[in-house]
Amino acid sequence: MSRRMVDVDLSGRRVVEQDLPEDLSRLGGRGLTSTLLLLESDPCAHPLAPESPLVFAPGLLAGTGLSSANRCSAGAKSPLTGGIKESNCGGTAALKLARLGIGALRITGAAPKGSCLSVRLSAAGVSIEELPDMAGAGIYASAAALRQRNGERIGLILCGPAGEMRLPTACLSATDPEGEPCRNFGRGGLGAVAGAKGLKAIIIDDASCRFSPHDPAAFRDLMKCFTAELKAHPVTGEMFAKFGTAMTLMNVNRLGGLPTRNFSAGRFESAEAISGDRLYETIKGRGGQYAHGCMPGCVIRCSNKYVDPQGRPVVGSLDFETIGLLGANLGIADLDQVAELNKLCNDIGIDTMETGVALGVLAEAGVFAWGDFPRVRDMIREVGIGTPLGRLIGSGSVSCGRAYGITRVAAVKGQGMAAYDPRAIKGMGVTYSQSPMGADHTAGNAITLAVDHTDPRVQLDPVRELHLKYTALDTLGFCIFTGRVSLAKPELVEQAVLAITGWKVAFSDLLELGRTILLREREYNRRAGFSPAQDRLPQFMEREALPPNGGVFDVSPEELGRFYDFEGSSGPKKTLGHY
Amino acid sequence: MSRRMVDVDLSGRRVVEQDLPEDLSRLGGRGLTSTLLLLESDPCAHPLAPESPLVFAPGLLAGTGLSSANRCSAGAKSPLTGGIKESNCGGTAALKLARLGIGALRITGAAPKGSCLSVRLSAAGVSIEELPDMAGAGIYASAAALRQRNGERIGLILCGPAGEMRLPTACLSATDPEGEPCRNFGRGGLGAVAGAKGLKAIIIDDASCRFSPHDPAAFRDLMKCFTAELKAHPVTGEMFAKFGTAMTLMNVNRLGGLPTRNFSAGRFESAEAISGDRLYETIKGRGGQYAHGCMPGCVIRCSNKYVDPQGRPVVGSLDFETIGLLGANLGIADLDQVAELNKLCNDIGIDTMETGVALGVLAEAGVFAWGDFPRVRDMIREVGIGTPLGRLIGSGSVSCGRAYGITRVAAVKGQGMAAYDPRAIKGMGVTYSQSPMGADHTAGNAITLAVDHTDPRVQLDPVRELHLKYTALDTLGFCIFTGRVSLAKPELVEQAVLAITGWKVAFSDLLELGRTILLREREYNRRAGFSPAQDRLPQFMEREALPPNGGVFDVSPEELGRFYDFEGSSGPKKTLGHY
Repeated sequence: MSRRMVDVDLSGRRVVEQDLPEDLSRLGGRGLTSTLLLLESDPCAHPLAPESPLVFAPGLLAGTGLSSANRCSAGAKSPLTGGIKESNCGGTAALKLARLGIGALRITGAAPKGSCLSVRLSAAGVSIEELPDMAGAGIYASAAALRQRNGERIGLILCGPAGEMRLPTACLSATDPEGEPCRNFGRGGLGAVAGAKGLKAIIIDDASCRFSPHDPAAFRDLMKCFTAELKAHPVTGEMFAKFGTAMTLMNVNRLGGLPTRNFSAGRFESAEAISGDRLYETIKGRGGQYAHGCMPGCVIRCSNKYVDPQGRPVVGSLDFETIGLLGANLGIADLDQVAELNKLCNDIGIDTMETGVALGVLAEAGVFAWGDFPRVRDMIREVGIGTPLGRLIGSGSVSCGRAYGITRVAAVKGQGMAAYDPRAIKGMGVTYSQSPMGADHTAGNAITLAVDHTDPRVQLDPVRELHLKYTALDTLGFCIFTGRVSLAKPELVEQAVLAITGWKVAFSDLLELGRTILLREREYNRRAGFSPAQDRLPQFMEREALPPNGGVFDVSPEELGRFYDFEGSSGPKKTLGHY
Repeated sequence: MSRRMVDVDLSGRRVVEQDLPEDLSRLGGRGLTSTLLLLESDPCAHPLAPESPLVFAPGLLAGTGLSSANRCSAGAKSPLTGGIKESNCGGTAALKLARLGIGALRITGAAPKGSCLSVRLSAAGVSIEELPDMAGAGIYASAAALRQRNGERIGLILCGPAGEMRLPTACLSATDPEGEPCRNFGRGGLGAVAGAKGLKAIIIDDASCRFSPHDPAAFRDLMKCFTAELKAHPVTGEMFAKFGTAMTLMNVNRLGGLPTRNFSAGRFESAEAISGDRLYETIKGRGGQYAHGCMPGCVIRCSNKYVDPQGRPVVGSLDFETIGLLGANLGIADLDQVAELNKLCNDIGIDTMETGVALGVLAEAGVFAWGDFPRVRDMIREVGIGTPLGRLIGSGSVSCGRAYGITRVAAVKGQGMAAYDPRAIKGMGVTYSQSPMGADHTAGNAITLAVDHTDPRVQLDPVRELHLKYTALDTLGFCIFTGRVSLAKPELVEQAVLAITGWKVAFSDLLELGRTILLREREYNRRAGFSPAQDRLPQFMEREALPPNGGVFDVSPEELGRFYDFEGSSGPKKTLGHY
């Protein structure tokens, strides 16, 4: 099934549709967004300039009911880092875009200031519409209004007030299968890119559209097998569904790597109160939903719908990174409080992770006391209304550190870290420092590796291999949580690609593709002004021992310098010329 | 006369004095601060880390009464740019340090948080003292108190409240011959480096010390000749003394290069109200002082003491960059208002230039109306008390742009531009983009060149040559305003070096020294993570035509890329191994 590339120019309000060029025809998701950014945009342009594109691409395999294979990527020059950014999420966007035959949606230009536009995609074509009554509206109200007007079956990608304010921590939100706008293209400030263009919403109406895999019979076999394997593994078959992503929290805390009070400690004395067990018990006891699938057909179902003591919906889904960074990192030990902050961030449209790191810096500066939930809530509300303090928080952790003279800022390339302190989980420091995206855990989630996380000498090669694998998964649209099956039995991935797209590809070539994409992203950053000197963790992590275990980040600069020396690795070596 | 290097470690409260190493013995000022930073500090360290040094060095020729030859350099890793920074000023610091035989003062370490220390230098030695009652004190009150305690003949270098708050726009202040703390190491946030160390004041007591030139007779001859030449030139002999640095304002305005309302125009309709003529008439009419020398013995005397309508002192000295950036750039057309803002900035200890650029960005964002002086004054006061808005302003123009989503931010490498728009004065764009310091006009003040300022093809070579010359002057401690004589008659510079230090050097070798220093600074930045991609002006200046003349900055990237290709220039080529 051929895929189209939809180009929307919001300056001229023009739409151009064409088949995806042949040389991009085997790319999807992250591979496609990053390649388009490198090849067809100026890495030196301002991220908020009209010419800077915002690209959406469903993963290459998107469109079917295959479990955990409908991730959607968004890519742009990041207003937060100044480098390339890909952020992907679940929900229904990828599935619906694929059903419409859309392989890439690229938005350039900008509407006149104060405009509030939607791009509507359906079988009837692409239209640009004014949303005159929606400027400044929260994400939840926007979703409700648009679903009322357009029907409950639509998929939405939304820009919140923070994006309209062009804040560097603004995310984009996507609706989940129930229509809740709680799946986020979270990191790197992509909401600000949309906001600068006057783009409030993308409406995806796939009514009457269907997607046919290349080989339906083979696809049915593959799907059955893949589903069975996911169900058979204790993590993907049971633990994610019960405890959500928070299942890792007590483990990270045991390892002494849970960011606590602005990364000043790695073990939170109240960790049990925000653990996966507690999350499960709370949701179950109150009649909320655990084992929720963020994408149609997902059998892992790590998502949840958190409810209050009366069983009323609060937010879906309460996840580990948010709990760690808006919880332990701020000295907050109450899931109800974290859930409320999460909902607030979602509604404003800001990244919960960057917000948690930024607020940690402010607490260290004495702006508020650790654990002061009402004050934290008020400050996040200030982001939504754009007070100076709100705009500072919305500028991210590094800006907060600059403004308050704080040197303990857990960020790389301008982006705050995820909820794993790399002094305790050192492979994560390799990921944070080497990813072209800044400190993204999803670039190579080293906590999953079977290595001694405290040994600086054993991290580099396995983490690099993980980056290649994850880059491939991000390109295919597979959730990285499938890794325990998809990476353990790569023949299943080969079968999925063949059955869905007709491309007979060896897994090793997919790793080679991952390598190519990673190098393209790095080249983009090089052109944008990054140098290898920025592939480092912040200095304090190399100096300050992290209580209670006392580790520093000591993977040597020389070892880190080997990361992009692919020839010297055990990874793939040859170069493919054509994707 | 041998010079000493004084190392002060504020962590251990230790002082080590030694003779300047032989290989540094022919360096002073910028050449010495930059060389010490490159060779003996970690460019990857956080600028506010205790280990990051703050270095002071009088120019190589400092210590005598030779006109305009007592500039003092301060150098550190810039909290504003993240790169190397040298900022120099007049006043009495260099003269007094030289009289004490001090060639370099290097401060490392940090006192415990909340400390407020002074370093006292005198013939009796170096001491570190607590200033318990001075934390948070304004620059003027600090100077008054310290002069009361230590006598009126001392020289002072002071850190203001902004530096104590570690704001990236915090400057350091030095006293002028009358003891007014109005000479600033203005740019790059060096005040924050001092503040992070707990260093409030450097007290320089040179009582009973004197400095002897190497060859007193030759020095007397040279001094007589140099003075006569300065007096004979209409600019250095008369215009600077009458109109101050503001003499250039109407010229820049005529060229269409006066930053107006956040660099959205290059001609200010009310320029005459803030011109050099008006400044002269105002000061003269009110009984203030024009033709004031910021350094003892200066015959150029571009400085002034601005007074209010009743003749009471307001601020010394009101200068072009401040008038341009806190005046025209904010739509303020009143010298009394600009002088009040200048005094306020001086007292808080922030760079008037960065503050003007940052406020221009906020005005464009709609935070206040152009020309709203009371609001501007209130906002600068907020910097002094550290409100969130104040801290944002104190973070500089780029942080303000990020927080408010403004793309028109006139900054390079994180530092705001001086009061020359490079779309009208294109050589200045070469300087801004290529200087390792960010957008410093003093790195190569292209307005002084006899070229067509609008022709993009004729800027590079003369501007590069200017950088070499100015780097040499900054190393010798000569004010760049001597250029009309010192660069026109380089034999006078050779004679000065020989008479004062005994070093027989050709001017061409001094240019070679300038080249070496510039390359050392660039190497520092490379190690700190800068790449040539950052040697560019902000994108909007290449795109948005500047009214009324309609120029864009169009010196091509290829042309700019030649800047550090010294072999291809008409400049010096050989390498000297030893300074």
